[in-house]
Amino acid sequence: MHMRAGLLALGFALVLCLGIGAARSSARHGANSEDQTAIGQVLTEQCEAWNRGDVAAFMKGYWNSPEVTFAGGSGFVKGWEPVTARYKAQYPDQAAMGKLDFSELQIRPLGPDAALVLGKWHLNRASGDVGGIFSLVFQRMSDGWRIVHDHTSVVPPHS
Amino acid sequence: MHMRAGLLALGFALVLCLGIGAARSSARHGANSEDQTAIGQVLTEQCEAWNRGDVAAFMKGYWNSPEVTFAGGSGFVKGWEPVTARYKAQYPDQAAMGKLDFSELQIRPLGPDAALVLGKWHLNRASGDVGGIFSLVFQRMSDGWRIVHDHTSVVPPHS
Repeated sequence: MHMRAGLLALGFALVLCLGIGAARSSARHGANSEDQTAIGQVLTEQCEAWNRGDVAAFMKGYWNSPEVTFAGGSGFVKGWEPVTARYKAQYPDQAAMGKLDFSELQIRPLGPDAALVLGKWHLNRASGDVGGIFSLVFQRMSDGWRIVHDHTSVVPPHS
Repeated sequence: MHMRAGLLALGFALVLCLGIGAARSSARHGANSEDQTAIGQVLTEQCEAWNRGDVAAFMKGYWNSPEVTFAGGSGFVKGWEPVTARYKAQYPDQAAMGKLDFSELQIRPLGPDAALVLGKWHLNRASGDVGGIFSLVFQRMSDGWRIVHDHTSVVPPHS
């Protein structure tokens, strides 16, 4: 019962932030469902933080290390502080941040303590929507699952 | 002595295709050096195949599965055949393929049977150079290390 309640709570959060596509998180790859739930929860919390305009809370989903990496259309950014600074520079206020949602999430285990998460992101903004795809590598840290590498691309609509 | 000879042989191939940046493959992450060598060898063979205009041999570096994925500026491509078709469509002949080199490779272990490889790619072409960055997820298969997910971005010069 307790487990069921937890899954329902996650389900509710997913509807708010991760969209119905999250249901595709693939059990067929043999992922441990507790790990899948924990990883989904990190993404849900990131998305909710983003939609409050709270970059600091959003960044809690990343490994807080000088070794964490972000890859995007301008190249690599390495280190928790530079990755944070990049987000703050690219999204200086809540209007620029817009409303984020993730969709079509796929969680693929890479062993007992690592997983690959693929998905789509979309920002709904008054100044113009933007979106694309991401590949996240998660690792299990002492304090839970964290993103150790994020490769994000903008994908123009209809491409 | 045998090991040393193997590393020297890899070193020679790296000079041809992977550039001096490959020396950065980071032992500090505690990677098994045999696995690092095997992964470097897959990339070297891919690069050499590319530079012969041999897409079929290049594709041997990827997991031959309907589950292999490629992420780029047009979204996701899933499956070995569609990924092959994408390369053939984007690079129809050897002039379009140009001369490939990889640089600044970083191999980060993700457990006993998975690794993340980050690096830069560059195509030298008469029609105009192009390059960018990649994030490759490798997994150990029964027949060796293979790319199970490739996220590649074009990065404009000076960005």
